[in-house]
Amino acid sequence: MQAVTQGTVGVQNHANGHTNGHATPEMATDAVREQVLNKAQRARRAASPLRLVSTEIKNRALHLMAEKLVQRAAEIIAANEKDLSAGRANGLSEAMLDRLRLNEKRIADMAAGCRQVADLPDPIGQVIGGGPRPNGLRVEQVRVPLGVIGIIYESRPNVTVDAAILCLKSGNAVILRGGSEAIHSNLCLAKIIEEAAREAGAPADCIQLIETTDRAATTHLAQMSGLVDLIIPRGGEGLKKSLSKIATVPMIFAAGGICHVFVDESADLPSAANIVFNAKVQRPSTCNALETLLVHQNIAGEILPSLTAKLQNAGVELRGDERTRAIVSMQEATSDDWDTEYNALILSIAVVDDMEAAIAHIAEHGTGHSESIITQNYANAEKFLAQIDAAAVYVNASTRFTDGFEFGLGAEVGISTQKLHARGPMGLEALTSTKFLVRGDGHVRQ
Amino acid sequence: MQAVTQGTVGVQNHANGHTNGHATPEMATDAVREQVLNKAQRARRAASPLRLVSTEIKNRALHLMAEKLVQRAAEIIAANEKDLSAGRANGLSEAMLDRLRLNEKRIADMAAGCRQVADLPDPIGQVIGGGPRPNGLRVEQVRVPLGVIGIIYESRPNVTVDAAILCLKSGNAVILRGGSEAIHSNLCLAKIIEEAAREAGAPADCIQLIETTDRAATTHLAQMSGLVDLIIPRGGEGLKKSLSKIATVPMIFAAGGICHVFVDESADLPSAANIVFNAKVQRPSTCNALETLLVHQNIAGEILPSLTAKLQNAGVELRGDERTRAIVSMQEATSDDWDTEYNALILSIAVVDDMEAAIAHIAEHGTGHSESIITQNYANAEKFLAQIDAAAVYVNASTRFTDGFEFGLGAEVGISTQKLHARGPMGLEALTSTKFLVRGDGHVRQ
Repeated sequence: MQAVTQGTVGVQNHANGHTNGHATPEMATDAVREQVLNKAQRARRAASPLRLVSTEIKNRALHLMAEKLVQRAAEIIAANEKDLSAGRANGLSEAMLDRLRLNEKRIADMAAGCRQVADLPDPIGQVIGGGPRPNGLRVEQVRVPLGVIGIIYESRPNVTVDAAILCLKSGNAVILRGGSEAIHSNLCLAKIIEEAAREAGAPADCIQLIETTDRAATTHLAQMSGLVDLIIPRGGEGLKKSLSKIATVPMIFAAGGICHVFVDESADLPSAANIVFNAKVQRPSTCNALETLLVHQNIAGEILPSLTAKLQNAGVELRGDERTRAIVSMQEATSDDWDTEYNALILSIAVVDDMEAAIAHIAEHGTGHSESIITQNYANAEKFLAQIDAAAVYVNASTRFTDGFEFGLGAEVGISTQKLHARGPMGLEALTSTKFLVRGDGHVRQ
Repeated sequence: MQAVTQGTVGVQNHANGHTNGHATPEMATDAVREQVLNKAQRARRAASPLRLVSTEIKNRALHLMAEKLVQRAAEIIAANEKDLSAGRANGLSEAMLDRLRLNEKRIADMAAGCRQVADLPDPIGQVIGGGPRPNGLRVEQVRVPLGVIGIIYESRPNVTVDAAILCLKSGNAVILRGGSEAIHSNLCLAKIIEEAAREAGAPADCIQLIETTDRAATTHLAQMSGLVDLIIPRGGEGLKKSLSKIATVPMIFAAGGICHVFVDESADLPSAANIVFNAKVQRPSTCNALETLLVHQNIAGEILPSLTAKLQNAGVELRGDERTRAIVSMQEATSDDWDTEYNALILSIAVVDDMEAAIAHIAEHGTGHSESIITQNYANAEKFLAQIDAAAVYVNASTRFTDGFEFGLGAEVGISTQKLHARGPMGLEALTSTKFLVRGDGHVRQ
């Protein structure tokens, strides 16, 4: 293992620093910065040859990763057991422990993910525009890697593999920064996939994992502009706020969503109830789950009694505005409720005058993630699609479909609610930049 | 004129605040912030209807702008004369005064620019991806406006029109922040084009010009996150540095370029000399002009004497490394020279061992703008195109072609050297985001 304190930041070391299974949780701040700087410099150096690596070698690396993950399942499970023991000792909830847990099934899923990414088309080198100019210059706009991408994530160790393989396939070096509770699992997984990448012919150091669990490492990583081209923080609004203030590296936040379903006057009510139930209950912890239901006043009395009963039977806590509570008795929604992402079995409900009122509510309280209208009215469907400014806008479907696989982009590194560079599920293309290639024959500008 | 101190920020006023030709250079800081906030809120409100305005109305507005600019040339020239008088009184150089000057020819050029943008395809609503999914969901990825764009620029008042028309065509409200030396010209131009936009049916307030010349306005604008979606600062590295630190709004810098031409061993030397001369001399103040010439050691003795004589005859000051000065006598290049964007008739020259050394020099000192190789060697041409990480990479052509018109993108708002969202000349597409439209028939996720 490369010592983080020996000042070797300028020295390229063929073996990457993931060979020690022990975390280094307590370090002097300078040593933390030096470790992050060292990883960033190694990744930067790897990025240059990596941009020229062929699709064939990248795919070979992905298949080799899949093989090695399965072959070394026992080693992974042993490392994961250390995290689980520490988690139990630290009083993590059973739900948290479950997110942390790796077993043969989950390892097989990670391996399958590697093979799926191998099957995706390589975005690098794709010609996306251009042509000959009147003066004979040949202009081509092509996709190229960004360079070095940092991924900051929490608890689930499978993200170590998912994030690394998307970066590799898109020709980017990656710096992984996982949650401290998964450090042993992450070190083990990173070691295995880095080894596979190297054996397949990818540059050494193209996959870096930050080993220290010191919180300062995240800050240092966010300030490595010039070495890191993009950071994708996959975490809550707290992480977003703390990083936005101090970051010098461009960031795309895979942020939260306050998603709405509006049931219009003309909706098919059984279908509407089915969609609302699915959007809220099927997986409430996700960012594309429903948080606020908006119901047209003319059908509220008809749909709400049975729908709310069904939701309550599924354990959903309901919070309604005055008009909702005039129909069904429930807890009162406070003004905070309209701006809260519950990520849990809680639903706020408002009765609105019409579609315009629903659109205005969404414009005020939405986070630009996923919004759906349930309607049989063609003009309203088209107007809702046009007027709502969000990453994904739906007609007669659950918001839960906002996902890279569901949209046909393949695997995703997260869902962006930003408008620049990438919006919605971020697949391989979101991890690329472009450049213009211009071929001439002695051309000068007049 | 709307008073900036009366606290009417929540009141929508049909007439926009550009009706007073007097700048307000000295204001209390609170009043400056309030003016910027007011403009941002007005732009935000205009952005919502503007995203639905048809191509027909946008084009009608552009043609009406062209007409009005020409009709009201005398009024524009009178306003411009105030700026010129103030500039003369403040001791602006003749070159600066020339940049500031508007005459009938330049006004006709602005009008022609409006008609050209009307002729460009409207990017809004373009379907750029998607299709039906196996479960029957219809997914479409379409281009949409960003919302509100701020443009910060200097001296040349024609940018007021150029920036506003690109934002209008791409469905974005714009907040213009021009240089204080052009304030009267900018106020007059903004008033005319805003009037034309409104008369054509575009929403009131979709074109906003910040009236105060107080420097604090730029800072406030950069911190209007939530109201402003993107700021494009068109200025030097100083502006970039000061804004990067304090901005909360995403920015794309139309930044400077340290551009290189590498003359390879196999270059056609007369053509190489022609390209180098063009890249340096044709318009040295631009960001795509040549700053550092790299010459292969095996042809340096042959090309440098005649080429440097030709450059010196054109008034170019030369600064060479040791190997260059062993061939031609000239001033010594210091280490700073390799990292300096002269924007003037100065050229630094280095003799390099081979193409790999040239690529390494560019990787170390380039700013990722425009880089060119002059060669007859096919393998070297392809390798240079692949390895150089820049917005535009050339073979056998002048770097001066990096430009929206030259690349066939139509007009541009600037040239980005960033890798995220937009790289190279930024045309209409760079001013857009995307969203996913998803149509279902009661779809729920399993």
